[in-house]
Order: sequence, then C-alpha cells, then structure tokens
Amino acid sequence: MSLLVAVPDRAMLERLGAIDGVELTVWALGSPPVDRSFDLLVLPYMIQPPALAGLDGQAVAVVQAQMLGFDGVAERLPAGLVYCNAVDVHEAATAELALALILASQRGLPAFVRAAGSGAWAHERYPGLAMQRVLVLGAGGVGNEVARRLVPFDVDLVRVARTARTDDLGPVHGWDEVDALLPAADVVVLAVPLDDTTRGLVDDAFLGRMAPDALLVNVARGPVVDTDALVRAVSAGLVRAAVDVTDPEPLPPRHPLWNLPGVLISPHVGGDVGSMSRRMDRLVREQIARLLAGEPPKNIVVGGTPHHTS
Amino acid sequence: MSLLVAVPDRAMLERLGAIDGVELTVWALGSPPVDRSFDLLVLPYMIQPPALAGLDGQAVAVVQAQMLGFDGVAERLPAGLVYCNAVDVHEAATAELALALILASQRGLPAFVRAAGSGAWAHERYPGLAMQRVLVLGAGGVGNEVARRLVPFDVDLVRVARTARTDDLGPVHGWDEVDALLPAADVVVLAVPLDDTTRGLVDDAFLGRMAPDALLVNVARGPVVDTDALVRAVSAGLVRAAVDVTDPEPLPPRHPLWNLPGVLISPHVGGDVGSMSRRMDRLVREQIARLLAGEPPKNIVVGGTPHHTS
Repeated sequence: MSLLVAVPDRAMLERLGAIDGVELTVWALGSPPVDRSFDLLVLPYMIQPPALAGLDGQAVAVVQAQMLGFDGVAERLPAGLVYCNAVDVHEAATAELALALILASQRGLPAFVRAAGSGAWAHERYPGLAMQRVLVLGAGGVGNEVARRLVPFDVDLVRVARTARTDDLGPVHGWDEVDALLPAADVVVLAVPLDDTTRGLVDDAFLGRMAPDALLVNVARGPVVDTDALVRAVSAGLVRAAVDVTDPEPLPPRHPLWNLPGVLISPHVGGDVGSMSRRMDRLVREQIARLLAGEPPKNIVVGGTPHHTS
Repeated sequence: MSLLVAVPDRAMLERLGAIDGVELTVWALGSPPVDRSFDLLVLPYMIQPPALAGLDGQAVAVVQAQMLGFDGVAERLPAGLVYCNAVDVHEAATAELALALILASQRGLPAFVRAAGSGAWAHERYPGLAMQRVLVLGAGGVGNEVARRLVPFDVDLVRVARTARTDDLGPVHGWDEVDALLPAADVVVLAVPLDDTTRGLVDDAFLGRMAPDALLVNVARGPVVDTDALVRAVSAGLVRAAVDVTDPEPLPPRHPLWNLPGVLISPHVGGDVGSMSRRMDRLVREQIARLLAGEPPKNIVVGGTPHHTS
C-alpha cells in the first residue's frame, strides 16, 4: 500500500524525511485543488474554522489538525471527511503556560517588567501561590497537566469536571459544585473545551461569586469568558485575570482589557513553543503508520466517533 | 522559667498573642538599648549585616533573623550572641519565584507585558520549558524545592552541589562537574549560599561556557554573579537572564541591566509573599518552645555549630 500525504509547509516535509510507502507533498489550505486524492492532509497550525472552505474541491480522506480545540469544525468541514485533532501535542505546553500565567500574576512579575522600563526597584509584597486554593475547571488533557504541575507548589488543589470521579491525582468534583466552590478559590483556572455548555460560562454571576482579588486564568478558549463582564469585574477591582485566549481574538489594539491593572495577556501561545513541531511530527508519523497498517487514525473528533476531553 | 522576647513590630506581637511564660515586647534595630536582657530577639525581615551594629549595647542571648542567607553576619554580629537563620520560612516561596522567573522568560511574558502597553498582539514562538535541560546549582533548601517543582514540567533535570550524592530526587553531581555540564544546559538556576567559594562564581568564563541563548536564573545572592560580566554577555546576545537578586542591590535607576533585552528582574522578593508571616510566626513559636524547655534554639548559623545548606 502506498499513501499520498500532504503537509502544509516544506519545513514539515523535510523534518519527516523519507518514509517507506509514503509520498509526501506540500499543499496548504487555499492552494488550488490538485487532481489526486490525499490519504492524509496535515493542516497549518492556527486556523479558524471558516478557512476549512479551502478544502472544497480537493479530494481528502483524513484531515489532521495541529490544534487541540475543534469548536466550529463540524459545521464547516466538507461532508465525508474525517477530522483528527492534535491530542498530546499541546497539553504540556498549554499547562506550562497556565503555570507561567499563574506564577507571574501571583508574584507581581508584570509590575516588575513595567517598573524596569524606568529603572525602578519596585519592592512590594504579592500573594504568591503556596498555601493558596486553586480551582481547576476541566479534567481533560490540559486540566490534568495543569493539576499535575501544581502539586509540588503546596497549593490546596480543587478539581472540577463534568462528572464527579476520582483519579490518580485525587477527587474531581462534579460541575454542579462550581458555584459552591468559587468563593473560596484564590485562583480559578479554565481548562474546559469550548462547546454549548461552556460558552459564556464566566459571566457577571460567575465573576461575582469569585473571592475578592482572586485570579481568573483562561487557557481554554476566549468565548468561555464573557469579555465585557470580565472588563467590568476587573475595572471594579473585584478580580484579576491572566488570559492566553480572548474574545475577540486577536484582541483589537484599543480594547479596554489591554491596560487594566491586574490583567496579564499572552497572545494565544498556549501550545506554541519550540518543541511543538517535534510532538506534531511524532503524531503525523503515528497516523501514517496506522493508515499504512489499514487501521483508522487516532484522535477522530469529527466524521467518526468523537473523542471528548473533560 | 520566664522569657523576654522582643519582636520588631506590633504586627508580629499581635499575631503571636499571649504565650504562657513569655513576655513579648517590641524592639527594633536602631531603637535605644533597654536595661533588660532579651532571651530572644527577632530581627526585621530584610537587613544588611552593617545594621547589626544596632545591637551594640543591648543585652541579647539569641538573635532570630527572618532571612535565610547570612553572608557577612559572622563579621558583624557582636561577640557572644547566637544567630539563627530562617530555615523553612523562605525556601518554598523562593523556589516558587525561581519557577515564575524561568517560566515567564521561557514563554515570553515580559515581551507580552510590554506589548500590552501599546495594545499589540505580539504572537511569537518562544522556547518553552518542556524537554529543556535545566541545571540547578545548589541542593540545599532552595535548590531542592526548585528541583521538586521542576519535576512535572517534563524537563531534563541536572543537579549539582558541593559533593556528589544521590537523594530522593535522584543523583546530584559534584561541583567539579559544573564546567562540563554548563554547555548543554538550556536553563541554569543559581541556588547556592553566598560564601568565599561562590562569590563571583558566574564570571566571563562561566557565562562563556553557557549554551547560546541559555537562561541564567539567580535566586541566590547578587554577588554570586559578576554583574559587569553578565551585562557584557547579555549585551552580546550570548545568554538571557532572570534575576531576583543583584549586585549592587537595589539596582540603581540608571544601571544598564534594567533595559537589556532578554533580562527579567524582580526586586529581591524571593521569600516575600503573603504567607511568609505565617511561616515566620511558626518558627518564632518553635524557638520560644525550645528556650522554655531549656533546649538550644534550632538553625544556629553563627555563634554555635553552623548549619550549612548545600
């Protein structure tokens, strides 16, 4: 059996190198359709679902995304295609960024960076992370990697997911307990997938239940938070925020969130680190091996049996 | 037996409250001597050794510092006094800050903070921490707490201390291996006490052996690094740096280190977090209990049997 595999850029083509039984070619979304059928097509890293219209007219069997989130994909993917997300590529890096955002906010690093501009030794006491209660919402890939990294920081870790359960990191509370758990949390981490049950989850009521000066961390998806409600809550000095994702995204230059005290924003770089391509290549090689063996690909989330995280 | 215990401020006096067999009073360095002998004197948090001259003329048995480092204390402490450092008060918070500095630097947070000032969505790829080699110099209280927190970040952790050994976190290399280990490290964390063997440890030669664009993290003491050498190495684009301590300290307003690209500076806030006073109070209570029981205090580092970390 021989496979035709399309990758989005020469860099990935060269990293993958020669693979027995595989013809590799470069084809990016928006390129003109070619008169051959791709057994596997790897998409570019960050694409919005409307860009999937670029697949129209191109024969493809399996689409492999480089992203983990797949909100809006089912509505846009051409009929008959199978879409796989990038499980085990971004979780570690996204969780790492969550810890970076938490620690930077709890230790005052943004204020120190601003003070450095004017050469100011801005010594002040910040809350820190040790002995704080951290509420992690979501116990899928990212949520569990966040939890695992929090353990040695001597925090009071409280985890919540759709259904209550116990795993190797301890108990997971059910979703119905969130309202009761919010007021006692010093840090609240959003690590849930974006779907109809989580869109707008963090609204005025949610923010109103948070403890005074608590930190909201969003490494999920921008629309999980009602941005206007967040601006109101932070402006009123009720909560602080550290977010890697926003709604809209990118955040427009004059958006009020940019310069609110107590807000730290990273530009959706959760999974985007130097080691990402190594993990992505590993996944592509594994999918190729499965297809060569006549097996279905892993991580099918649209067009097959969906795998939900959390 | 009854003890006279002096604390540096009313806040600590009130937090400690009434303790059987103990008279608590407030006396700060620089106050006029009183005509009574303190069985235990708790110093203010951040003091430089020359300030110990403020003890002249005051009868004191045991001096309890709120700091962990005690470089220069032996030379300045009036004869006959016993000086105890603050073990188990700052290690967790200092290690936490080390992780904050590492993660912020490896994920580009300082650049994102600066970009936010002009409302810029500055998406760029940074090295991250996962799969990087982290060299931790020092396996005392702070070094081990740093190592413990690094474990879940999927790093290649390499530890070095004065003498090679193996502990529950794995192997510790001996000091003679530092030169050989430096070139392969992506991150180098300084967590050594300041003494004659570590003063100026990080000089031109040390920095020259570091890998291109590697990150130097200093949560030890400023003089462990030759500041001029660091400025040269960072200016030349050889290494990056994230430091909580500097030499001189505070860093003067016009010092070149403030605005070098790739440098993150926090103003010696390693142990200075909201939960510090709880841990300090716990230590003071323990010292009082020991003295009441006729036992020697713990953590004697000058004027008794010294306890060295690392």
